[in-house]
Amino acid sequence: MKVKNLQQFMKEKRIDFAFFITKRDKKDLNVNYFSQSQPESGCLVIPAKSKPLLFVSSLEFGEIKADVKVVQIKKRVSEELKSRFKNIKRIAINKDVMTLNEIKSIKKAFKGACFVDISSTCKELRETKTKEEINMIKKACMITDKIMQKCISNFKKFATEEDVVMFLKNEARKAGCAMSWEPLVASGTGAAIPHHNPKGKLRSGFCIIDFGVVYKGYNSDMTRTIYLGRPSTEDIRMYGLVLQTQQDIVSQIKSGIKTKDIDKKARNLLGRYSKYFIHNIGHGIGIDIHEIPFIRSSAKGKIKEGSTMAIEPGIYIKGKLGIRIEDDILVTDDDAQYLTRFPKNLICIVK
Amino acid sequence: MKVKNLQQFMKEKRIDFAFFITKRDKKDLNVNYFSQSQPESGCLVIPAKSKPLLFVSSLEFGEIKADVKVVQIKKRVSEELKSRFKNIKRIAINKDVMTLNEIKSIKKAFKGACFVDISSTCKELRETKTKEEINMIKKACMITDKIMQKCISNFKKFATEEDVVMFLKNEARKAGCAMSWEPLVASGTGAAIPHHNPKGKLRSGFCIIDFGVVYKGYNSDMTRTIYLGRPSTEDIRMYGLVLQTQQDIVSQIKSGIKTKDIDKKARNLLGRYSKYFIHNIGHGIGIDIHEIPFIRSSAKGKIKEGSTMAIEPGIYIKGKLGIRIEDDILVTDDDAQYLTRFPKNLICIVK
Repeated sequence: MKVKNLQQFMKEKRIDFAFFITKRDKKDLNVNYFSQSQPESGCLVIPAKSKPLLFVSSLEFGEIKADVKVVQIKKRVSEELKSRFKNIKRIAINKDVMTLNEIKSIKKAFKGACFVDISSTCKELRETKTKEEINMIKKACMITDKIMQKCISNFKKFATEEDVVMFLKNEARKAGCAMSWEPLVASGTGAAIPHHNPKGKLRSGFCIIDFGVVYKGYNSDMTRTIYLGRPSTEDIRMYGLVLQTQQDIVSQIKSGIKTKDIDKKARNLLGRYSKYFIHNIGHGIGIDIHEIPFIRSSAKGKIKEGSTMAIEPGIYIKGKLGIRIEDDILVTDDDAQYLTRFPKNLICIVK
Repeated sequence: MKVKNLQQFMKEKRIDFAFFITKRDKKDLNVNYFSQSQPESGCLVIPAKSKPLLFVSSLEFGEIKADVKVVQIKKRVSEELKSRFKNIKRIAINKDVMTLNEIKSIKKAFKGACFVDISSTCKELRETKTKEEINMIKKACMITDKIMQKCISNFKKFATEEDVVMFLKNEARKAGCAMSWEPLVASGTGAAIPHHNPKGKLRSGFCIIDFGVVYKGYNSDMTRTIYLGRPSTEDIRMYGLVLQTQQDIVSQIKSGIKTKDIDKKARNLLGRYSKYFIHNIGHGIGIDIHEIPFIRSSAKGKIKEGSTMAIEPGIYIKGKLGIRIEDDILVTDDDAQYLTRFPKNLICIVK
């Protein structure tokens, strides 16, 4: 995606090439983005004036399908680069991901070269999505809706939080997708911890189900909160408040509004419960599950047309309960379209 | 684990504190190691002369159980550190994981401080395992053996490589474990690619099953190769060669032998097939699935008592077949003990 835009930027800045390293435990998703592939590890080189090259090891070579030329690494990558590129003066790197030890060997291979941080430029390119990307995210969201539907229909069969997690993972795999991250299922008082680790019996009360799938490298991210047992009037009221907040917020999003205003409005809508809303109201989604715009009170800038994001207000009362409702949306010039569409009325499961 | 050893080292080097950052997509497993916890993201600070502190966000706080004190992050971590530590001169960091942008804010908070790379020291501390660690790795290996047994017994039910992957993942979850990585199932010509991505129907010929589980943060790593259909005499001979190589190599491992000699011996044993052995013969396992010692021709140093490692010879003939046999072992002063023990006779599945 957008390799030409990046190359245009590089030419303007007199950068010779951009260099990205991705590893199993230290992903640079710019590699996936610009090459449209998902290598376990590898290096992507994007020269300003010629075609990109994706270097992968013999362990993966032959498996990787990419929009760019794939090359098998035969020697150290820094040596490989040195033999291919001469008279290099300016190299762009992603300082958000490149480590202090990785830069050493590159510096050694290109003595005297200047290193420019390209992290922000990549983030900005990725913020607004191409039609192709929007289609992939839409597909991921559709699959997510279907899995959520199946999960809720089968809910009476589950005994533990892990049972629900297993069900979600199996359904995703059946649909040919990986999970965006380990699904989160949090019931009873566990729901009060936003990143609860699913374990043990499903407890009565609110139960948060938060997951996403990866379709051709692109993520969805959806949360629904159901009720196990019979909710009190107060429970229903609190759920209604989170739901109303989410719907009001989404109805106000369109391109050009200030990012930080979304956060402010959400906290206003939650009123006296806003102190129980302990995370950000939303974040961009795409090839990464969390990317710009990060929608928080300190955010600068405005919401852009063609950006895709997750909006997720919540209430977390420690030792008591947790409620979160999250949908993915696509921002247009005059509104925001829901990409995840599973209903949001409070579903109660009474065994 | 070994916090005191690290602190002793820091005192000798006049380091004030060590600072580690771990994130969802950029793990520093030293955080897990020294704190014996598995935060999704967080920072670990180990002062030379006082108790370590693990900083986690409100999203995880309340969930994390650790061997060290867990603190909820309330402001920027660099600010948090600045308010707690005064007159700091030398800070240890892991330059293998810390990024160029992360170091910026720490440098700003501790102007004039000197930053020392502690990556090698941590690797060396982690190379030899404590009794407690060995027990956890043994348990991971036992669970792996059981899952492999169940997988093979059920093999006739599977139609696709994904079916096998799903079965392995479900069994691991039932045993209360995560997978060490996405399981690898590679049949027919797919087996010729060491990091094949499982997809589509199980094809006749050799089928590689490579997976590991995480028990209390510690990994196993095992591979068995079975045959789908009826193997030829040549197939049986090649399988026998890989098996003989693996057993001979393991029988020669004990503390004190040169690491690079293991690689050399394996390639000698494989004879004219050594050109088809396109990866390293082995690697350490522990809190990381790949850690020192990396057993390859360029390796320096000797094998140490108390280290745990995976030994995995293989043959990969492009467009034809792949065979790999991998066990985890524990090195003692006079031999190496198998930790994974599932039988290695060639199992043929004929439907």
